[in-house]
Amino acid sequence: MAEFVVGIDIGGTNTKFGIVDKHGHILAQDRLLTNEHEIVEDFITDLHHKLMPLIDKAGGAKKCAGIGIGAPNGNYYTGNIEYAANLKWRGIIPFASMVSEKFGLPVKLTNDANAAAMGEMRYGCAKGMKHFITITLGTGVGSGIVIDGKILLGHDGFAGELGHTIIRPGGRLHKGTGIKGSLESYASATGVRETALELLAENPDTESLLRDYSLNDLTSQSVYECAIKGDKIANEIFEFTGELLGEALANFVMFSSPEAIILFGGLTKAGDLIMNPTRKSMEEHLIQIFKNKVKLIFSELKEADAAILGASALVWD
Amino acid sequence: MAEFVVGIDIGGTNTKFGIVDKHGHILAQDRLLTNEHEIVEDFITDLHHKLMPLIDKAGGAKKCAGIGIGAPNGNYYTGNIEYAANLKWRGIIPFASMVSEKFGLPVKLTNDANAAAMGEMRYGCAKGMKHFITITLGTGVGSGIVIDGKILLGHDGFAGELGHTIIRPGGRLHKGTGIKGSLESYASATGVRETALELLAENPDTESLLRDYSLNDLTSQSVYECAIKGDKIANEIFEFTGELLGEALANFVMFSSPEAIILFGGLTKAGDLIMNPTRKSMEEHLIQIFKNKVKLIFSELKEADAAILGASALVWD
Repeated sequence: MAEFVVGIDIGGTNTKFGIVDKHGHILAQDRLLTNEHEIVEDFITDLHHKLMPLIDKAGGAKKCAGIGIGAPNGNYYTGNIEYAANLKWRGIIPFASMVSEKFGLPVKLTNDANAAAMGEMRYGCAKGMKHFITITLGTGVGSGIVIDGKILLGHDGFAGELGHTIIRPGGRLHKGTGIKGSLESYASATGVRETALELLAENPDTESLLRDYSLNDLTSQSVYECAIKGDKIANEIFEFTGELLGEALANFVMFSSPEAIILFGGLTKAGDLIMNPTRKSMEEHLIQIFKNKVKLIFSELKEADAAILGASALVWD
Repeated sequence: MAEFVVGIDIGGTNTKFGIVDKHGHILAQDRLLTNEHEIVEDFITDLHHKLMPLIDKAGGAKKCAGIGIGAPNGNYYTGNIEYAANLKWRGIIPFASMVSEKFGLPVKLTNDANAAAMGEMRYGCAKGMKHFITITLGTGVGSGIVIDGKILLGHDGFAGELGHTIIRPGGRLHKGTGIKGSLESYASATGVRETALELLAENPDTESLLRDYSLNDLTSQSVYECAIKGDKIANEIFEFTGELLGEALANFVMFSSPEAIILFGGLTKAGDLIMNPTRKSMEEHLIQIFKNKVKLIFSELKEADAAILGASALVWD
């Protein structure tokens, strides 16, 4: 009888992993540096070396139902990591089968944003919901879409790339994709920083606490700190970001009519500063049948735990 | 043993209905005027009067598996028609149960665009596909989204309103919804006409065959006729419409990663004039993992039959 699962979250910098019981308690966790490993086989060897003691301590592989992995560009159908821009391993990596072989355990893999949605459904504020969308506002903008209680994968496993949808045609260039005006260019931490630089440049005569920061220190976090002190430009940055994000969310609602949209990630630390303009803009851009229906909420999962929990939920599912 | 079904398509002007066998052959059909009936009960009485002889001729109600209805703002979950702007019957109409009671047959109802998608899946070019989107480019812009072989309904039955997604924030006002810059404001027949009027006004010195038409006769059809004669402005109208439509389609692809997008409706009569700029724009706005993957095709169903077939497919399904 399986008593626990392993959740692994592979990020561009860190890989976090943990032992998770059926109730969503993380019994043990550790991490290793992802990009220190030029070769994926070396990474898996190191992962095995660090993770096996945790598995043994929890009761051994026989009590483990399997390993769930969230990874950038992870494909649920194939178990591959395909052309992940933030990882050093190039091309198509049959990651799930490599890990399964190394550990002798069943492995399920999906992209990190879909794993986050699984975590919300099993352990977070989407418990009991069949239709919702999670939007991760972090370094990038990720998304996981749940329809009829299942992650939307599409015909090839790549559905749910909402951060790349275009919300300002001909707008800001996304250096990673070469596409102009995508949501990620504005509503990510990187996008907020860029908006800050633009607004400061466009308003040279407006005083702002943001001008005291060095270019390196000017982040979405510093924008937040200035905004709560009443800084005009910092507040405008959140207004602008929320306006755009709300428009994008309205489009998503008119696509799949979810019960809720759950926001997650660094930018949500700004609380009402980002929530209020986002909600206002979303409602303004919805047609009548969708107005005042969709719950727009922040995730309640601890950011440190959410990735491991989400990955682990893949196995219980 | 059921031998046939009834398909009913309720439009703002006409209601078409027909007897359909399992192979998608329409054995008999007729129509009545929708908006001639101020009261929905009178409409159903007239429908019964005209439809029962067809049912009797086909073998009687005992051989009929049921009635499928496509209607504006039709809700599959409730069987209601809810606040349909183009119909005279106001508020929430329990249409499916009213028809079921009148005919003594099971009734399934959905919105007209979803019915069109069902028809494509059962009888049209989406046979065998599990993930696709149909876009109807008619007086308005309708859409039906199929995921894992099922119509996407969302938590309340209203999913798939892609014509109302915003593609030009702050752009052209949609008089029906009050929202600016929605796809329907540009890619519908009405939108094409408006683009024509704008381009003619903006380029007073450019000769155009379109200037020979009266305001009443200037339609998407006349734009097509001028475009194939090489008219510069008429061709620009299709370029512009395709550019916008392609952007919107790219956004839809990045949401649900369909195998195909099927275009249907009056505007598709323009053939390559609309298809080429649309495809080019869609591909330009997709991130790498989606490029050159999605089939963009025209429906092969006859427009006259498609609505009845689509509605009938609801029952077989």
